[in-house]
Amino acid sequence: MTATITLLTDFGPSGVAASEMKGVLISLAPEIHLVDISHTISPQNIPEAARILSRSPFYFPEGTIHIFVVDPGVGTARRPIAARIGSQRFVGPDNGALTLALRRAEAEGWPVEVFKLDQPRYWRPKISNTFHGRDIFSPVAAHLALGVPLEAVGSPITDPVILPLPTVERTAHGVRGEIAVVVKHFGNLITNIHANDMADLGDVSVRVCGIEILGLVRTFGDRPPGEWVALIGSEDELVLAVVNGHAGDQLGAKVGDTVEVVRASA
Amino acid sequence: MTATITLLTDFGPSGVAASEMKGVLISLAPEIHLVDISHTISPQNIPEAARILSRSPFYFPEGTIHIFVVDPGVGTARRPIAARIGSQRFVGPDNGALTLALRRAEAEGWPVEVFKLDQPRYWRPKISNTFHGRDIFSPVAAHLALGVPLEAVGSPITDPVILPLPTVERTAHGVRGEIAVVVKHFGNLITNIHANDMADLGDVSVRVCGIEILGLVRTFGDRPPGEWVALIGSEDELVLAVVNGHAGDQLGAKVGDTVEVVRASA
Amino acid sequence: MTATITLLTDFGPSGVAASEMKGVLISLAPEIHLVDISHTISPQNIPEAARILSRSPFYFPEGTIHIFVVDPGVGTARRPIAARIGSQRFVGPDNGALTLALRRAEAEGWPVEVFKLDQPRYWRPKISNTFHGRDIFSPVAAHLALGVPLEAVGSPITDPVILPLPTVERTAHGVRGEIAVVVKHFGNLITNIHANDMADLGDVSVRVCGIEILGLVRTFGDRPPGEWVALIGSEDELVLAVVNGHAGDQLGAKVGDTVEVVRASA
Repeated sequence: MTATITLLTDFGPSGVAASEMKGVLISLAPEIHLVDISHTISPQNIPEAARILSRSPFYFPEGTIHIFVVDPGVGTARRPIAARIGSQRFVGPDNGALTLALRRAEAEGWPVEVFKLDQPRYWRPKISNTFHGRDIFSPVAAHLALGVPLEAVGSPITDPVILPLPTVERTAHGVRGEIAVVVKHFGNLITNIHANDMADLGDVSVRVCGIEILGLVRTFGDRPPGEWVALIGSEDELVLAVVNGHAGDQLGAKVGDTVEVVRASA
Repeated sequence: MTATITLLTDFGPSGVAASEMKGVLISLAPEIHLVDISHTISPQNIPEAARILSRSPFYFPEGTIHIFVVDPGVGTARRPIAARIGSQRFVGPDNGALTLALRRAEAEGWPVEVFKLDQPRYWRPKISNTFHGRDIFSPVAAHLALGVPLEAVGSPITDPVILPLPTVERTAHGVRGEIAVVVKHFGNLITNIHANDMADLGDVSVRVCGIEILGLVRTFGDRPPGEWVALIGSEDELVLAVVNGHAGDQLGAKVGDTVEVVRASA
Repeated sequence: MTATITLLTDFGPSGVAASEMKGVLISLAPEIHLVDISHTISPQNIPEAARILSRSPFYFPEGTIHIFVVDPGVGTARRPIAARIGSQRFVGPDNGALTLALRRAEAEGWPVEVFKLDQPRYWRPKISNTFHGRDIFSPVAAHLALGVPLEAVGSPITDPVILPLPTVERTAHGVRGEIAVVVKHFGNLITNIHANDMADLGDVSVRVCGIEILGLVRTFGDRPPGEWVALIGSEDELVLAVVNGHAGDQLGAKVGDTVEVVRASA
């Protein structure tokens, strides 16, 4: 069975650096599926990577290996790590990018193991100081794809870096969260509020950046173009949008802006 | 033999949403080729998708499955469909994105079959209201790649949505069409006028946005940098360009602008 | 063993034209790995392609076939070529894009062979005047992947086009080179100065666009965010950067700007 390796980086749309990782991967493990998750993470934006790593990898086959390279500390004392989180494996720098995947694992009761990479025999012979994605993470991922166990590429650790990423809070009349992602192409605002966080609220309205959206709809097409909608998106998260419009531009909304969900009666 | 599945969406350059589709596809059908046709369709721009779907898929091996997700009506009553058009198969929403592929099939005498997807056993167990690309179209495409016949995933229909997309008209001295695509990177203007539409005109000149281009050249390098050229492009369509320049920016031309081809003697 | 074919073009981020090449490639050679090196080369920028072709391909398995399509002369008398340079094979237009790969081969003592493509039986039956990437280079690459030898697809030539691309010069107190790449996403400035060019200089400072950077650091994280650093990057080249900032925007630096490396004592 063909193993799958994915790449998530902040290298930008050029593709050149990612292609060098793919060359290294294919050289070691010719029979793999390579899938790009994204290369357009904002430079050095670990929270943005953390959100994606807690969601998209879990649509892949069991045992898929996800390399993440948002790595402002490359070449410093920050540790290179590999991890098993639920059904998926991860390889990258120990800088908190796995925070939300680990938080989800705790909520869902998934098994977790984290290893510090310390076996240079699974790395490229020459390691640059600025591109461990190519020189350490890719060869380690290729060896994992070839059947080398996680236990062989590193030593277990119990203290991976965890970032204090925002959580959703209960308020007097509902819950308070924030905008987690502004989808560039469509302009939709994805919040960090999960459907479960709102399950007991009944009918609600949503307040963001000075506007109020009354009620939830099922999908975008339930209101005419140009109108605001609030709905539960494909990751079970509260999403705010302008039908066929660009909510982010229209509102000047940005990641971190407060989102209030309140009972309709409040 | 490895089946191929392609993706055409308006999700933008991030790649994250497309990667979830790929995860679902590989989970069900590990031995496939995955190829991105494009993810930079303008949001909700069905005519733009229609033009690409009438051309690029037909360079792929017989039986390739093309998933298209430009889907402003996702989660509403619009039907999910699968189709066979000539040598290729398609899976996506019934919103007119196949209009030009179907028009081409009629012109070329290709066989056509269209099915409404109504067999949830080939879908993901849980269907979101906003991402049928991942939850319906991808698992259906994966099952087709595994050998499930089109007939098994849906019921035949004879009334797929057809959009009134522009056609080329005969005029007193030639033909009138329009700009179909402004290629962003190069600025070339691709028209909806096919070489066949001009076959009986002899020497021509081309009028667009207030300028006139005399005669056709074979290729860009036939005139010096900076000059306007008209030529028959790689899809047998009339293309207007500034050699090594950006015709779109220079002329302020946009999709839908009129293009007149007239006999040189007129 | 699965052959790998890569693509490097100036087609831009849309992906549509590249997908037609992939359709042609898979139609002829179903069992290949397809990897995008980049499609965001600036239009017609042969030197930019040349730099990438001298570096990234050499991370791929021996015998990988790299198609390059930065081809302003498509359809003119410029020759289509295929080449073996060291462990890698290349297919594209003879316009100087291989200049730096050939220069590297000479420095490293790698074997080189270049062939003019003149065997249309390995091309598509119908050749457009404007898209040889799809109609000539892709089918030739597919046949190479299937085992057809380079000698069969063309005739040997000894005069491939070589561009007078800039070299690094010795100065009284060090070396003088230039900015070769401004990385769009991060803003880092990659120079054409190799670590070997500076090996005998001892401690240095670097002058570019009116600023001076004292000393080299090992990696970005060795200085605080916002500070300038000079370091040896992952291709063994001198790189100038602002830690977690965008050096290119901050300095208004562009490709071709002079970079001076001088002994610290000078």
